[in-house]
Amino acid sequence: MAVARLIEYEGASPEVRAVYDDIRATRQTDYVNNFWKALASDPATLKRTWESTKQIMSPGALDVLTKELIYIAVSVTNQCPYCIASHTVSARNKGMTGEMFHELMAVVGMANETNRLVAGYQVEVDERFKNA
Amino acid sequence: MAVARLIEYEGASPEVRAVYDDIRATRQTDYVNNFWKALASDPATLKRTWESTKQIMSPGALDVLTKELIYIAVSVTNQCPYCIASHTVSARNKGMTGEMFHELMAVVGMANETNRLVAGYQVEVDERFKNA
Amino acid sequence: MAVARLIEYEGASPEVRAVYDDIRATRQTDYVNNFWKALASDPATLKRTWESTKQIMSPGALDVLTKELIYIAVSVTNQCPYCIASHTVSARNKGMTGEMFHELMAVVGMANETNRLVAGYQVEVDERFKNA
Amino acid sequence: MAVARLIEYEGASPEVRAVYDDIRATRQTDYVNNFWKALASDPATLKRTWESTKQIMSPGALDVLTKELIYIAVSVTNQCPYCIASHTVSARNKGMTGEMFHELMAVVGMANETNRLVAGYQVEVDERFKNA
Amino acid sequence: MAVARLIEYEGASPEVRAVYDDIRATRQTDYVNNFWKALASDPATLKRTWESTKQIMSPGALDVLTKELIYIAVSVTNQCPYCIASHTVSARNKGMTGEMFHELMAVVGMANETNRLVAGYQVEVDERFKNA
Amino acid sequence: MAVARLIEYEGASPEVRAVYDDIRATRQTDYVNNFWKALASDPATLKRTWESTKQIMSPGALDVLTKELIYIAVSVTNQCPYCIASHTVSARNKGMTGEMFHELMAVVGMANETNRLVAGYQVEVDERFKNA
Repeated sequence: MAVARLIEYEGASPEVRAVYDDIRATRQTDYVNNFWKALASDPATLKRTWESTKQIMSPGALDVLTKELIYIAVSVTNQCPYCIASHTVSARNKGMTGEMFHELMAVVGMANETNRLVAGYQVEVDERFKNA
Repeated sequence: MAVARLIEYEGASPEVRAVYDDIRATRQTDYVNNFWKALASDPATLKRTWESTKQIMSPGALDVLTKELIYIAVSVTNQCPYCIASHTVSARNKGMTGEMFHELMAVVGMANETNRLVAGYQVEVDERFKNA
Repeated sequence: MAVARLIEYEGASPEVRAVYDDIRATRQTDYVNNFWKALASDPATLKRTWESTKQIMSPGALDVLTKELIYIAVSVTNQCPYCIASHTVSARNKGMTGEMFHELMAVVGMANETNRLVAGYQVEVDERFKNA
Repeated sequence: MAVARLIEYEGASPEVRAVYDDIRATRQTDYVNNFWKALASDPATLKRTWESTKQIMSPGALDVLTKELIYIAVSVTNQCPYCIASHTVSARNKGMTGEMFHELMAVVGMANETNRLVAGYQVEVDERFKNA
Repeated sequence: MAVARLIEYEGASPEVRAVYDDIRATRQTDYVNNFWKALASDPATLKRTWESTKQIMSPGALDVLTKELIYIAVSVTNQCPYCIASHTVSARNKGMTGEMFHELMAVVGMANETNRLVAGYQVEVDERFKNA
Repeated sequence: MAVARLIEYEGASPEVRAVYDDIRATRQTDYVNNFWKALASDPATLKRTWESTKQIMSPGALDVLTKELIYIAVSVTNQCPYCIASHTVSARNKGMTGEMFHELMAVVGMANETNRLVAGYQVEVDERFKNA
């Protein structure tokens, strides 16, 4: 309950297995990573989180690589080591080059800096940005 | 010094004017937004921040719109109202559609959720994600 | 000074021992965890932090388990691994079941998601929520 | 697209109306707050977020008031003014007294303080908290 | 209970008045700012928070101005508008010049940037920094 | 690309070597820490970040030790283990005593606590703090 107990396919209930099967089919890999195996101790959250993730991360107006970059940007800002490690691998698998990663980091770093300059200088929103 | 005193072009020193001129030329607009006018009370930070921003946000391995989306992702995660307002306008000017914005928000929201599930369940990094 | 030097009871000053004694008596256990042993290098902060914690975490209008759940919610949101590990154990000792932990995580995850949707969509506070 | 356009029931599509109807029925009130009216510009996110919220915030191993307190703890830690305002009202409607609110704030404040003391003193996790 | 009800001296209980009197005497001003008037709805938290603040912010190995700068650094990082506004005024009253404020902002901005570069690049702690 | 590949002087390009040389000369040490060796995979970011850091952290209206204390305050608030470890060592090398470190931690802890009390109680900015 404290540190995540990882639930393997073999010992999983039918409803957990159904999610694992869908993860494997959707991602076209046999590998199910620790995050899902940890959530599996709560099948309702496993199912809801997977279905939301599947819906949100699928290609749409934004392609899947752009979505991975955004995911990494959030995870780096929140200082989540697991999320950074897993989504960096995932982004590479979807085509992120070293150069793209470097530019992503540069933007994330700069945005975190300017977010604080804005706060510290108490900058008020420009009229033209309101209700734009 | 507390709330940002905004420095207008007319009352600016030559070094501040030079930055404003470069902002206008680079962005192809006469408008200089409040952030820069606030930073202008410290010309060294104004110049360094603008030059870094110009370098980082220019097109490279990532296009300028993708960089704006990443900027918004960070600003939303950090809850910076000014940054969200200004970069949302900026992203629209660079081609962000309503559908793209909606997908951006969905990914940012989901990443913030799963970042905490990972932390709370104390999920350990998969061996295959280490030194990948 | 950098990594916490842990001060054991045997080598502690009388004022540090007095706090350790009170921790043991209050918690009805001989165990003093690393957090307190690290703070002991600054007896004033040790004493102030323990006395504040003792006052705040004691049963009142909220029971002690509810207070532990709130503590975990904050620690997960802040991504503090030590705090998550220690307070999850503490909450279990006070009666948190696996099912309660799962629901806690679900709420924490969802709140972190909707906090960002609110920011990103720049939602204004409803009139009826002001000065309610 | 930038500042949230609020979609009222009268101008809403059938799928948005269905969510509003379910919000009203579930909460036993005619009032739909701005958050949902803003999300309605993206019906997929509106539906997914509402259904997740409804599932997560319903009574289970934790009662609805405890869940609201946890929601507030996260929102205060993230400094989300809208979320604090709306969920404080919501918690009061579910029975939160002034005394409970005060104790909630005290725990949230203390947890945010000790989270940083742990980080700054670089306290390592006690062996007994690992794999507990 | 939701938005802070501010308790004025005239309508305050003796225990709240005692804290207000001590704030005034310690700060050598008649003014009690809104933060304390809001906390006064919970006299126990008012008293504990004031006494901790008084102890922590008094001159010691660090002078009072340095402590104010640190306070601002935290408040800017957490994006707390009230705290930034009030402590910037307080720091000025204790001798912060415009130049000092500018350098403070530059350091805070840079630290927020490099904190994320470290996380994103998954930089491991140098051996020589461990147990230093 | 995922976990930072550390680039040593021997295998570095001339532009990376130039930055390493300047780090060594500026800091009067042969040691280049992992952060810079990780950034070296992106020479543009290495150079920009080093030059900004050099400019910002040099003595000015604030002395170098005060700047290190501010850096630690931000890093602790953001829960960045690498940054806390490296800058604590750096601050000690610049004269931070144990007592100064203890006071720094106390202020950082208290500021993180009061930031949330302000948010939770929805305290409005005093008129006298606006445009001060």
